[in-house]
Parts: sequence; structure tokens; C-alpha cells
Amino acid sequence: MPQIVPTGKPIYSFSKEHEPVIKVDSGTRLVVEAYDCFENQIQSDHTTMNSIDWNRINPATGPIYVESAKPGDVLAVTIHSIEIGESGVLATGPNLGVMGHRIDEFTVKITPIEDNYAIFNEKVKIPLNKMIGVIGVAPEDDAVPCGTPGSHGGNLDTLLIAEGATIYFPIFHEGALFGLGDMHAAMGDGEIGVSGIEVPGKADITLQVFKGKSLKHPVVKNSDGLSQLVSAKTLDEAAKTAVEEMVDLLLPHTDLELSEMTMLLSAIGHTQISQIVDPLLTARFFVPQWFLDTYNIKIFG
Amino acid sequence: MPQIVPTGKPIYSFSKEHEPVIKVDSGTRLVVEAYDCFENQIQSDHTTMNSIDWNRINPATGPIYVESAKPGDVLAVTIHSIEIGESGVLATGPNLGVMGHRIDEFTVKITPIEDNYAIFNEKVKIPLNKMIGVIGVAPEDDAVPCGTPGSHGGNLDTLLIAEGATIYFPIFHEGALFGLGDMHAAMGDGEIGVSGIEVPGKADITLQVFKGKSLKHPVVKNSDGLSQLVSAKTLDEAAKTAVEEMVDLLLPHTDLELSEMTMLLSAIGHTQISQIVDPLLTARFFVPQWFLDTYNIKIFG
Repeated sequence: MPQIVPTGKPIYSFSKEHEPVIKVDSGTRLVVEAYDCFENQIQSDHTTMNSIDWNRINPATGPIYVESAKPGDVLAVTIHSIEIGESGVLATGPNLGVMGHRIDEFTVKITPIEDNYAIFNEKVKIPLNKMIGVIGVAPEDDAVPCGTPGSHGGNLDTLLIAEGATIYFPIFHEGALFGLGDMHAAMGDGEIGVSGIEVPGKADITLQVFKGKSLKHPVVKNSDGLSQLVSAKTLDEAAKTAVEEMVDLLLPHTDLELSEMTMLLSAIGHTQISQIVDPLLTARFFVPQWFLDTYNIKIFG
Repeated sequence: MPQIVPTGKPIYSFSKEHEPVIKVDSGTRLVVEAYDCFENQIQSDHTTMNSIDWNRINPATGPIYVESAKPGDVLAVTIHSIEIGESGVLATGPNLGVMGHRIDEFTVKITPIEDNYAIFNEKVKIPLNKMIGVIGVAPEDDAVPCGTPGSHGGNLDTLLIAEGATIYFPIFHEGALFGLGDMHAAMGDGEIGVSGIEVPGKADITLQVFKGKSLKHPVVKNSDGLSQLVSAKTLDEAAKTAVEEMVDLLLPHTDLELSEMTMLLSAIGHTQISQIVDPLLTARFFVPQWFLDTYNIKIFG
């Protein structure tokens, strides 16, 4: 049975300064428990903005120190399964999300989880789409709040970070200093209201260090294909950078010229949106598995 | 058998000034023939930039005048089928698309269409994903080149504009003045190299006017759900406007408050990218069919 990392005292930022809660070998399987993004403070539809301690938002469990992880390596996080709590919560409000300029009051909605649905109201049952919102390693420089995404991961809010996926992060510091939190029972690409269906949960994962590989930004691999994630100040910049980094990632594995790869990816690759509501915005570029198979491309492992 | 609208002398802009090539009643089914986006000028991999007449780019067939169409109405275009030519062409080059800053030379690649694939090279066979890139009506004000998208449609380069879909356009002028062109055998979301697999083709469509409905930007309906398309100077603006217009489109059909609809769409709606390489960028917001069914929402018809 995998070792459990309990929520304990969470971190609110990813930082090289944080003391590890545990040290594990590369290849270790762990169950990491996590609060929801409100640190489980919202238990009723009547919760007001002022009753919430906003210093306890987006907690992550960690950091987990991975032995042998050195700056310049890559950390692979394979998600075997995600178990979520019995109840989730949605929230939106003034100046939050895409519609915040037209919303007058902080609003929350408790959504019980029943079978494979989150119950929004008597009419609307939302199919579950379990995922991890905050996941990453210590960033290269200053601490980054868990609510912000970046090259180290953090608040990536990406639907693909789900059961069966492996996420690859650049490592900036010894031990990598990995953490996760902010699980969602369901979320749409964009997370337009500023929250998914926020839930506490447990992630069963394996952490593995790859030597001799490097990355600028996180990459996700699942059975559908490979996705390059990039967070930036604008969606335009995030999307274009994701395209360029994917081109550079794939090109050495083929016999194609840059212009040929560009034409090919124009026909078969997809520019996609992860989230448009965090302090930086996250886009991704996806390449389907059939193309990777054609050239027998295995970026990692 | 539906009436055929041949390519004839194409238009290179959508404009209220163009003389209609045909007048049809609302509800008419037509087969509209189209050149590829290069007006079929590229027939070899050795075609040079200078050998192409760049005044003949993005031709559309039309305009088609639809009787009874008045400013403020909505034009529905249902695509029954798309038939494409036997050969497509991909292109990219300096200052074109996302990689244009690193590409030295205009490059084209002829891709024969065989069975349900476009043949990129000996190794790579691209599954077809037939769609229409340029489609729309005369814009409200000045003529808009067919290479530019907008509230009138135009170069929307949206994968969803495919067999089985219905696209709804705001009508700005009597007769709507509809046209289409720029078909693709396949394209990825983003169209990152500046071209899809460009092909000549024929679209079997029905044109129908809806009275008493209005739209700000085009909407696409298919069996998966409803998508609001918006083109703007930045992807950020396009995406956010698409979200807001979808909220306003759906809200009157439900008993939900604005904040509830926002939270719900944050959990179930998807912010997506159509293209990031045209003079304006096009994003969309998608809501799944199961939600429309829950509230029995039929926006049109």
C-alpha cells in the first residue's frame, strides 16, 4: 500500500525555502491528501465573503523532496487515481472570473457528489471530470503563490491533469520540492467563473526523476497524445509559446525540416485553453498520439 | 437535385456593394463550388512566392442574395455535406503563422487525398477533417477582405464549420449577401502555420432566414452542442467576449441567476481556440448538448 502524505500544515506558495514534509526516492508511489482550494472553509451556500480567511486559499500539500532530483532534470508525476470528497463547492463574485464585472455579490454553491455526478440543482447533474488544479515544484527564483501558474506548474487548472496522465515538470532545485492541491470534481476549459467544482481529495501518484532531459514548461502525456502547457500574461503569448516549444520538442525526433513540421502541426495539432482567470493565463498545444506513434516518438522514458 | 452555384468570378471581400451572383428564397438548398484559398494557383511543391498572384487569395463564391433577409435577422447555413478535390496544399513562410519568425523561405507541400487521408509523406497519413474556412455575409460597414474574420463571419477558420453543423450569422443588409470558400481537407485548432490542407470543393448547404432573432457574432450548432464564435484583435478579448455572449444567449432560456449560470458554465463550458494566425483572432465558447436538453433550450428554430 502506498505511503500517505496527509494534508497537515499546507503550503500557500511553491518555494525553494519550504521545509520538506517528507523525503522519498525517485520511483516512489504515494497517496497525497489535499484540502479543497478554500481549505474546506465553505460548508454552506450562505457562506459570506467576509467569513472566509483569504490567507488560506489554494493550499497545497508538500513540499515532497525527491532524492536524486537536481536542477535541470525533469520530474514525472503519474496520476494513478483521484479520490474526491462527498461534496464540492462552486464560487464566483465581483471582479472574479470573466463575468465578475457584472456580478454584485460573492456567491457559492454546494454541489453534493452522487455516483458519478455533481448535483448542481434539481435539473442539472454535472458529469464528473476529476482533476488536480494546483501541482508543481519549487520555482527557480522567488516563491510563487499557489494561485499563480508558471514554468514550475502551480495553478495550472488544466483538465488534462487527471487520472491516467503523466505530467513532466522542469526541476529547479535539489529534491524538486513537489506539491499538489486544488482538486476539482469537474471544470470546463477556461474555468470562466474562477472556480471549478472545488473538492478535497486524495491523489495516488508516482514521482520519478528523469536525468538528461530538460524542459522549459510543463508537459502532459496521456493516451490521447502530448500537450505542452505554457502560462503567460496573455493568452496570445501563452498559446504561441506553447506552439513553439512543442515544435522544438518534437523536431529532433523526426526527419522533418522546421517548415515541414510547422505545416504538419498546422493540420494536425490543436491550440487549446486551460484557464483564463488566474494571475497568469494558461494555454496548451496538443499533438495526437497517432503522430507520435508514426515517428515512434517517446520524449521521456 | 440542388441548384449549383459555380465558382465563376469569385469575391475577395465580403461587402454590401457586391452584385449577387444568384437570388434564392429562404429555405433553398444549394451546392456551392469553391476554389482553394490560393484560387488553385499552387499545383507543385516547387511553386515560389513570386509566382503566385497574391491579389487572388482567399476567394469566396458569391454573394448569394437570400430573399426576405433583412438587417437584424439571422441567417442559418446548414452544411449537409462537403466534397473536396483530389489534392490539397499546405503552405507556410517567413512572417506567416506562429513559426514565421524562424522560417526563411515560402514553402508549400502538395498532399494528395486518398481514401479518407491526406498523404503528407511516406510515413504520415493525416485523417481528413473536412471544413469550410471562409463563410459569411456582407458586414455592416466597409468591405472586409475574405482573409479577415469578424461579426459577419469571413475567415473564421473554425473546425466546427463542418458536415452536419448549422452556422448562424447576424444579417446586416437586405438579402444577407452570403458567400463561402477556403475549404480544408484537415486543419488543427489554431491553424498555426497559416494554412490548413487547402482544397477546392463543393458544399451542399441550405440557407434559411430566421426573423425575430438577433446575434452579435456567429454561432455554430452541431450534435455536440452550441458554440459562440468571436473574432478580436487578441485571443484574450475574443475568448472573454465569447463567454459573455454565450451567457447572455442562454440566460433567458433558464431560471438561473447570472452568478449561478456563471458558476455552472465554469464547470461545464469550454473556452476554445479557432485560429491564431489571421488579421483578427477567433475564439469560441462551447456548451454541451446535454445541458441544452436539460432546459430544453432551442435558440433558433
